[in-house]
Order: sequence, then C-alpha cells, then structure tokens
Amino acid sequence: MQLGMVGLGRMGANMVRRLARNGHECVVFDRSAKAVEDLAKEKGVGGSSSLADFVNKLTTPRAIWLMIPAAVVDDTIAEIVPHLQKGDILIDGGNSYYIDDIRRAKELAPKGINYVDVGTSGGVWGLERGYCMMIGGHKEVVEHLDPIFKAIAPGIGDTPRTPGREGEPTQAEQGYLYCGESGGGHFVKMVHNGIEYGIMAAYAEGLGILKAANVGKDTHEIDAETTPLRDPDHYQYDFNMPDVAEVWRRGSVIASWLLDLTASALHGDPELSKFGGRVSDSGEGRWTVKAAIDEGVPAHVLTAALYERFSSRGLADYSDKLLSAMRFAFGGHLEKPAAK
Amino acid sequence: MQLGMVGLGRMGANMVRRLARNGHECVVFDRSAKAVEDLAKEKGVGGSSSLADFVNKLTTPRAIWLMIPAAVVDDTIAEIVPHLQKGDILIDGGNSYYIDDIRRAKELAPKGINYVDVGTSGGVWGLERGYCMMIGGHKEVVEHLDPIFKAIAPGIGDTPRTPGREGEPTQAEQGYLYCGESGGGHFVKMVHNGIEYGIMAAYAEGLGILKAANVGKDTHEIDAETTPLRDPDHYQYDFNMPDVAEVWRRGSVIASWLLDLTASALHGDPELSKFGGRVSDSGEGRWTVKAAIDEGVPAHVLTAALYERFSSRGLADYSDKLLSAMRFAFGGHLEKPAAK
Amino acid sequence: MQLGMVGLGRMGANMVRRLARNGHECVVFDRSAKAVEDLAKEKGVGGSSSLADFVNKLTTPRAIWLMIPAAVVDDTIAEIVPHLQKGDILIDGGNSYYIDDIRRAKELAPKGINYVDVGTSGGVWGLERGYCMMIGGHKEVVEHLDPIFKAIAPGIGDTPRTPGREGEPTQAEQGYLYCGESGGGHFVKMVHNGIEYGIMAAYAEGLGILKAANVGKDTHEIDAETTPLRDPDHYQYDFNMPDVAEVWRRGSVIASWLLDLTASALHGDPELSKFGGRVSDSGEGRWTVKAAIDEGVPAHVLTAALYERFSSRGLADYSDKLLSAMRFAFGGHLEKPAAK
Amino acid sequence: MQLGMVGLGRMGANMVRRLARNGHECVVFDRSAKAVEDLAKEKGVGGSSSLADFVNKLTTPRAIWLMIPAAVVDDTIAEIVPHLQKGDILIDGGNSYYIDDIRRAKELAPKGINYVDVGTSGGVWGLERGYCMMIGGHKEVVEHLDPIFKAIAPGIGDTPRTPGREGEPTQAEQGYLYCGESGGGHFVKMVHNGIEYGIMAAYAEGLGILKAANVGKDTHEIDAETTPLRDPDHYQYDFNMPDVAEVWRRGSVIASWLLDLTASALHGDPELSKFGGRVSDSGEGRWTVKAAIDEGVPAHVLTAALYERFSSRGLADYSDKLLSAMRFAFGGHLEKPAAK
Repeated sequence: MQLGMVGLGRMGANMVRRLARNGHECVVFDRSAKAVEDLAKEKGVGGSSSLADFVNKLTTPRAIWLMIPAAVVDDTIAEIVPHLQKGDILIDGGNSYYIDDIRRAKELAPKGINYVDVGTSGGVWGLERGYCMMIGGHKEVVEHLDPIFKAIAPGIGDTPRTPGREGEPTQAEQGYLYCGESGGGHFVKMVHNGIEYGIMAAYAEGLGILKAANVGKDTHEIDAETTPLRDPDHYQYDFNMPDVAEVWRRGSVIASWLLDLTASALHGDPELSKFGGRVSDSGEGRWTVKAAIDEGVPAHVLTAALYERFSSRGLADYSDKLLSAMRFAFGGHLEKPAAK
Repeated sequence: MQLGMVGLGRMGANMVRRLARNGHECVVFDRSAKAVEDLAKEKGVGGSSSLADFVNKLTTPRAIWLMIPAAVVDDTIAEIVPHLQKGDILIDGGNSYYIDDIRRAKELAPKGINYVDVGTSGGVWGLERGYCMMIGGHKEVVEHLDPIFKAIAPGIGDTPRTPGREGEPTQAEQGYLYCGESGGGHFVKMVHNGIEYGIMAAYAEGLGILKAANVGKDTHEIDAETTPLRDPDHYQYDFNMPDVAEVWRRGSVIASWLLDLTASALHGDPELSKFGGRVSDSGEGRWTVKAAIDEGVPAHVLTAALYERFSSRGLADYSDKLLSAMRFAFGGHLEKPAAK
Repeated sequence: MQLGMVGLGRMGANMVRRLARNGHECVVFDRSAKAVEDLAKEKGVGGSSSLADFVNKLTTPRAIWLMIPAAVVDDTIAEIVPHLQKGDILIDGGNSYYIDDIRRAKELAPKGINYVDVGTSGGVWGLERGYCMMIGGHKEVVEHLDPIFKAIAPGIGDTPRTPGREGEPTQAEQGYLYCGESGGGHFVKMVHNGIEYGIMAAYAEGLGILKAANVGKDTHEIDAETTPLRDPDHYQYDFNMPDVAEVWRRGSVIASWLLDLTASALHGDPELSKFGGRVSDSGEGRWTVKAAIDEGVPAHVLTAALYERFSSRGLADYSDKLLSAMRFAFGGHLEKPAAK
Repeated sequence: MQLGMVGLGRMGANMVRRLARNGHECVVFDRSAKAVEDLAKEKGVGGSSSLADFVNKLTTPRAIWLMIPAAVVDDTIAEIVPHLQKGDILIDGGNSYYIDDIRRAKELAPKGINYVDVGTSGGVWGLERGYCMMIGGHKEVVEHLDPIFKAIAPGIGDTPRTPGREGEPTQAEQGYLYCGESGGGHFVKMVHNGIEYGIMAAYAEGLGILKAANVGKDTHEIDAETTPLRDPDHYQYDFNMPDVAEVWRRGSVIASWLLDLTASALHGDPELSKFGGRVSDSGEGRWTVKAAIDEGVPAHVLTAALYERFSSRGLADYSDKLLSAMRFAFGGHLEKPAAK
C-alpha cells in the first residue's frame, strides 16, 4: 500500500523505514529538503519537492500521514487540502488535542476528506520495537488503512499473550487499536501519556527517597525553626542507585519498560549530574487532568505528577514567597538560607 | 497565683507580661542573664540566677512553665527535676511531639511530678491578642492551673459567640481547652498547625494563579517540547494583588486572620521581593501527616501543603533529575533552559 | 440610583433589600410571580409581570443585574437584549465562567450594550454582612455603577484596617473591587472559590484526624493483609470536636469565618449525623484548576480539595476496583469486607 | 546448601520448591501440620513436628528463613532463639518494618545470632518467575547465603541486559541485591512497594478517566448546585477497556508487568464486577511516606496513592460530612442525593 508522509523528524522518518521494510511504498515531504533527500535514498522511499509535488505523486484515494508538531497541524492541513480530492485521507499521527480532531473531522467532512487521528507511542525506540498506535475516525476508513498500521505496529512479538486471549491475535495484541470515532485515538493516547507521567513520578519519588536514606548522617543545629530528625540511626543507608533500579527489573512487581530506561540512565551516572531537573511537560498530561475534571473523576496521582513538573521549573515561586511572607507575619519566622 | 517561666524568647516573655498584667506573680529564668534582667525590671516579675535559684524562689506545689525549643525540653527536664518535689508541676508550652509528652508523663509519675502539655498558638501577636491554648494532662492538675491559663488566654473578647452557646462562657470560648490526658494538648496543637499549613497553601496557590493570569501576554516559540497556550486572550489580566487580598477581608467566605496577614504582607510589597521562597517547616506539619497515616485518614491537602514546602527548598531535585533522565531515555527529549 | 434585578433567589432578593435599605430604587423580575409579588411588598421595590414590562419600568441607561444560575444566563440575555437600547448595562452577578464573560462582552459590544461581570461572595449571610464583590468590565461603566456596589458591599465595618492603609478607605477596603476588563471579576471570584475549597478541606482533614485519634482503642486481628497499629497507646484520645473548633476561634492562627461556621455546625451535632458526606462542587473549583494548568502554576492543594469532593460522591469507584483487581492478580489478595 | 523454612503460605512453600528444584535441601515447619505434611511429600523437602524438632534437623551454622506475617515475627523469634547456637542465621523474608530489623539485629548480636532481612517481591507468580530479593545484614553473612538467594532469584532470564552492563551478570542482574546493613533490604523493599502503589494508582486513574469518557451521554438537570458539562460532545466515547489495556502492552512507553496483570483482569470482566473497590494497604506504603517525611523528600504521588486506598474504604467520611456541613452553613446548600 502507498503512504505519503509529511514530517521527517525522528518518528516520521522511522515510521517510513518500518513501512518500507514491510514492502509499502512511501512518498515523503518535509520543510527541510535535506531531510527529504536523505530519506529518499533508502529503498522504497520517494521524495518530493513541495506539498503540491508530494500530493501529485500519490495515487487516489490518497493516504497522507502528518507527523509534525501539534501546533502546526492546522496550518499544514489548510495548505494541503486545496490539493486533495474527495475520498482522500488525512492522518494526524502527532500529539494533537482530541478536541481539535473532532473539529477537524467536522470541517473536512463536507469536502469528502476523511480525517483519522492516531496517537503514537514508542519514542526513539519505535524503529526497533514498533509503534503502539491508538486510532480514531470512521471505522471503514481506518479499516482501509489497516496494512499501514499493521506494518508500523510492533506485532505480537515475544510478549506472552494475555491468558484467555486465543486464536488469531487481535489488533490490540499486535499493538494498534481502533478506539472509536474522531478524537478517540488521541483521547486514549492523551490518557496514556497522563499515566506515563504518573508512573515516571512514582519511580522518581521512590528513588528520591532511597537516595536520601542517608540523611541521618547529616548534622543539624538545634533551633526553633527546624525539627531535628528523631532517629538519625534509621537513615544511615548509602544505597547503590543503579543496582537498585537493576534488581527490580527481574521478578519484581514493578518491572516495566520505564524501569529499564531508568536503570539504563542510572548506570554510569548515578548522580544524574548531566541533568538540571527542569522537567518539561507536553500537552497530554495537562489535557488528561482537564478531562478528569470534566468527567468528575479524581486523578490525584496524575495531577500531582504534572504539578511536580511545573514546580521543577520554578513555577511555584510566587506561592512559595507568599508562604514565607505569611510565616514572617504571624511568627516572625525568617527564612533560612539555602540548606535543608 | 505564682508561675515560674523558663525560656524568655518572644513567646515566653510575652506570656509573663500577660500574667503580670493580670496580677499573677512570675519568677523567670533563661540561659541569657540579660533576658532575665530585662524582664525582671517589669512589675510583678522576679528574676533568678540559676535553675536551682529559680526553683527555690517558687512556693510548693511549684508550677513551672517551659517555653523553650522542643529539642532541648528533655535535657532541661533532666536538669530541673532533681530540684523538684512531689506535687510540683512541669508545663511544656512549646512545640513538643505529643508522643514525648506521653513518655515524659510516664517517666515523671513515679516521682510524683505532674506533667502538663500545652500547645500554644498566637505567635508574635499573642501579647495583644492572647494565646490560644490546647492542654493535656491529668484533669485535676489542669484545673489547679486554671487561673494561669485564663490569664494567658484571649478571653471571649469581641468575637461573636457561636449560636447556641449561651450562659457563662466555657473555657473553649475563652480560648483555652482541656483536651484530655497527656499528649492531648500537643496532639490538638499539632493538627492545628497541620491545618494552618493547608490554609496557608490554599491562599498561596490561589494568589499564585491570580498572579500568573497574565501569561497570555507571553510569547512562546512553537516546538515539539512545549504545548502553546490555546487561548492567550483568556490570560490577559494584571491583577492588583494587595487589593485582591484586601477585598476578601470583608464579607467574603474566605475572610480569616491569615488573610489579614497576607493582605498586610502584600501591601507595599506586591512582588514579595524580600522573600526567597524557601519555606521552612517545623515538626507539627510532619507529625500531623504521620498521625493521619497511622489512623488511616486521608489527608491529601495537609500533606501536599507540607510537600510544597519541601519542594520550595530544593528537596525534590534528585527526583526531578530522574524525570529528565527518563524523558531523555525514551524520547530523546532534552531539557529546556531556565524559562517556562 | 435605580437597579433592575432579575432572579429573586436567596441572594438576589437580599441584594435588593440591601439596596432598598440604602435608598436605591429597585425593579424586580423572576419567573415566579409569587417571588416578585412578595418582594414588591417591601419598601423601595417595584415588581414587574414580564421581562418586557421589567425593562419598560427602568429608566435609560438601564442597569440590569442578573442573579440567576450560570446555566441560564445566555438564554436570559438572548431574551432580554431585544428590549434594550444602546448604553444599557447588563450585570451578571452569578457564577459564570469568566470565559463566557469575555465572549458575551464581545457579542454585546456591537449593540452598544455594556456587560459587567460581578463575582459575589457572601452566601446566606450577605443580607447582614454585605456581599464581597469582584468586578470586571469597562472601567467607566463600573464607575457609573459605583453607588450600587457600595450599597451591596459590606463597607469597612469593624474589621481593623490593614497596617499602612490610611486615609479614605479604598473600594477594596469596603469589600468591592474593580478587577479589570471583562471576565476579571469572575476570574478573581473563581479563584476565591478555589481557595475556599482548599481552606474547607484543610479544616475537614484536620478535624478528621482529631476525630480518629481514638483508633488505638480498636482491636485488630493479625493477618497478612493488615498492618497493625504499632503504638495503639498513642491513639487513645476522644476529643470534644465542638470545643476544639471553638477554642481555635480566639487567639489562634487559624481563626476564620469558615471556622466560625464549622464551630457552629459541630455545636449540637458533633457527629454531623444529618449529613451523608456527598459533597457537591460547583464550577469554580474546577475552573480554578484548569486555569492553574493553563498557566503552569502548581496547585496541589486546591486540586486535591476538588478531587476529595469527587471521591465523596463515589466517582473513584472504577479506579478503586482496578486497584483491587491488580492486587488480586499479583498477590492473590482478596478484598476485605467493609471495615477498616 | 541446607535451609530451614518457617511458614508455608503461598510464598514460603513456593520458595522451598524453587530451592528443592535447584538441589538444595529444605527442612520446613508451619503451625499447620497439614501444610508441613503436604510439602514434605515433595523431593528434597523434609518436614518437622515442632520448632524444636525443626531446629534439631538443621546442621550448624543453621540458616532459618521466616516467611510469616510481620506481626508474628517477634514472637516467633523469641520462641526459636532458645534453640539456636552462636553463628546461626535468622532470615526474615516477610514484610517487616526495617526499623524492627535494626532493633532485632541489635538484640540478637550479643547471642551471636546473625539476622538478615530480605524484602521479597513476586507474589503468587514467584514460583514461575522467581523472587526479586532486596537483602540487608552483615555482608559476610549475606555472602554465605548466596547459593540460597541465587536459587530463589529469577536469574537473568530473557530480560535484555541494561546497555553498558557486560561480562558476568551481577547479583542485581540476577534479581537479588545486597543493599547494606540491617534493615537495608526491607528499606528498599518498602520503597519498592511505595512505588508499586503509585504505579497502580496511575493506571487506575487513567483507566478510570477512559471509562468515564462517555459522560457526555448523561443528561443533567440545570440547577444552581451542579455545573453542567460545557461540551458534552467531547465525551461520547465508549472505549473497550480490555483492548485499551492490551494495546499498551506492546511498543508503548507504559508497558509493564502490572499492565500485563491489568489487561488480564479486564479481559472477560471489563466492569470488574466481582470487586467492590475497597482497597487494602499493607504497611510498606505507609512507611514509605513516613520515610519521605523524615527525609524531607516530597512524595506527592506515592502519598496520594496511599490516601486513595484509605478513601476507598470510607475513611474520609467524617471529613466529607464536615465539608457538607460547612457548605450548608455558609450557602444553605443541601446535599444532593446519591448521583453525580
């Protein structure tokens, strides 16, 4: 099957490679002519010099995958649509807000253009592992694209099947899923990332507690501002952080792919000295919380994970100053200098 | 009635003043001879040159109030007890952990010395407003000390009575309360401070949100790492922070004494530029959370308020670095430099 | 000055009364003819039989205050606007989302109708205490309405002035504030309510911890599922809940109007037996969190307070079942029957 | 090597089986004679009729593994110690609080008995997967026991090695780790479980949000108490929960063993109708939070996960009633009946 790919960043380019390896024909476009040129050297990949040229090289009904920053999707759609025909398919494989998917599908419907939203997980590892995909749109359009999704997806691989799942592996077991009407794919991907924030925070907090298990070795002055550690002898451990992450990888309840990555990051740099700890957040974590609020479903953990990232970037500063100001006002408490 | 006061810091000295004003006789001691000398100049106050001298100047059964850092209470008790007699009373008015009160009461019982724990709120304002006191110990001993507590407490004052409370004002209405056996006073005070952390955080977070209500005026670059603000025109407000705090003081549901202090802190320094935002925490907030955990009672808010203080002092750094390291490992995400 | 009031619920009717007491002329309308009839009996109040009649009875430029559920504001505006003239003023004094204010002001501008948004706090106590008001819209329109706001507001009253505030009391000191352009009033009110959620939760959690301070009296069976309380003798307190709330009202750091109400609620019903604990939330708490997220400002406490309300209504049930299912899957843990 | 096992529950019995399979000789004891009899039928396992008999059957220096509820460890040690000799080793493989380990090691040292603490993860799956072990105690004693740990541990298996780890696999890579002096093993296991709570909560919350993604199909009455869903058309999804959990198992960032179990639990029972959602917590989650507090390390996520379990068991009820009581007091808000 033929696919047109717009956006040849890390993920777009690797998806093209997986498709080409599986015998699909790819036509590619990127704002960077260099990116197009490089990828077009690979077998099964054809380049294009402009969006118009790109569209022309595709046979109808066209299947066009956009793998570009969410912020430029609308503009790109606006630019590409005049070149399209009824029956063509636009796939947004980036990190769009599902609410935009609902709107776009509605806007494109009168033109007979089908819009499919695909949430994609896999990061830099997707070329090797395959990409887990969550897909929204009209069922028959998604079914038409099935060969594409199947080639990009991980497949059932070595992962043991879930007990009770027998016979021909389902889509879900091959790592891609039709989730429902427009926006459904990005909704599920959004929550997937929300969960990712929560899991990452769980490891980070826990390892942070292990790292500080030697605080009993510190000495504190006695003053009215600081409560001394009651039992310093309970906190005398210098744990080997890379080994702790490593040991949990086998046989423990908390084994996971994120733990594998954590063990890898800690190995050789137990102090993580090359990181400053200013943690970015992309939209999905925020949108997950907003969905929780709209639905009235409590999400303490996912929200706390998001807020910790805000705090890591210094965004609680005014609030913190207010606390210091109040403490000074009622108790004459002066802030202590930078130290625990 | 006569009271001996050990510890002439901000609170101890002002309590002595309130007692003296109410006609009680005070004998005072402090490690600082200067502090003793200064206070002893005031009417109704007698100084002492050593703990032994201090004890000698008190008539039996002695009532001795310790107003000293929690960390030195045990040592001070050990030093003073040899001078005491059966029937004497030791009052710990500082911020002891109630678990220490239970232990101390047990240790002193065989010697016939009565131990009373008093949680005291009021900070630097107590001289004027009186001190709210929460008291634990044997009922009859606490009753014996009633004139002391009554003098230090705020009294019923201008605060309107709670509907349904009629007749002679109770202890509670005068701002002091017998809470139960040993540790009960500090237990209630501990939770009082836990609540204080939560309320302070509520104001701080809310005012932080108001302060940042102009983020729509910022400009963001478009990249894959940052989600742009969807509706910048919804965040174009430059609120007058001192006036906002002020307007809530009258007629609003969230009027409070802490809000009064906040309004006062913001007036003249809306940016709170003299504070660095490194917020200390004393033991009570921590102990409150531990009690919640032992009891199995969820305390999301009080705990979050405590943790925000930890974060404000940089104590989440290793966890934050782990998050950055994981993001780099799975997505090749590089940290952004210091900026939103 | 003349004001037209639409919506004679608890708050609307009492605002009319405060205006009438201050010599302002009020024309009132409500879907319930009975409500109009009753209020029109009071001095200074005129009734009306329909929206058209209501508008007719007002002199131009009309000042019309809507005190109705947020969900019906748009419909009511649509119904009333055809009767209005250029220069008339519509005031939304309810709990609208500030984003709707921004939209409405834009929609009404071409018709020359001025839109003012007023966040109002005070609840059932406003008749007596006055209403704290946060106001958004064009400055000159808000200034024109000043006599109205002044009459409804609490005024400076007995509350001591913030140190440093001298001379003629400002608006803020009288309990009303011009916050900025359209939506600014409801934005500040929204955050006000977010803070209210946080403060309420702080008291509720803390008092919950005090209530459970007798868990050491329970007896637990020993099994592998439950960790026994290590130190039951640390949790033997039966605190007098009404007295604890009462004692904090005077002299303590956490004295507040919400505490006054709490003391009142606990007095006579310490077990709060007439409440089921299903806590509603209105929109402001949710919107505050969404604003925090858009701004990137951490709001752990305000959000936790919101989620606790969701949980109180059983909205975490599916998540909880998932936890039980996972525990069963990895450890064979069966749920315990209903008990701690 | 020979090992004595006390406690033949799920985990103890399976550990014996793994040891026997690996050619180690096991002597077993349990309060239930039937449990002993059954296991003693298996190859390489010898039974015993009493603790005395059990000890007699072991050669010195004895290695005795206790796999019993944490609450009975101290009593069992007291019972067994009189039968032991200098140089014998007691291993606590259950879920003891590490603080008890520190104490026990100190108490046993004068008798020349070595105490080793082992945190064990693996649950009902350990027989097949092996048990991940975190070990504390004197280094040379732990080294002496190495053959035992090696046999119980998972071994390196199919899990890919962490990049950079080469040569002979380390202990950590085989799924067991010497963590440090007494208590170190249970400390790491404690935090491991704390992390487990956080991860479980992340999945549970996220899946809860997906489950409720059809709330837009509900109809709400308009009243002042409830804010209507602004955009019901954004919440019209009926996601297939088992398939969503399944699709994430391959290629996604959040693949994990807990997700495998979740997918398994949802398959065939998407509504989880056999669970009531009353989630137990064992001690480790609580102790992890207490350690975080002592260390001053923020742990928002791990703590929220713990509190959600408390709430699931109804332990927030008094706090919730207080919120309802306050709302009634300031706004006359009545609770809504059981519904959203």
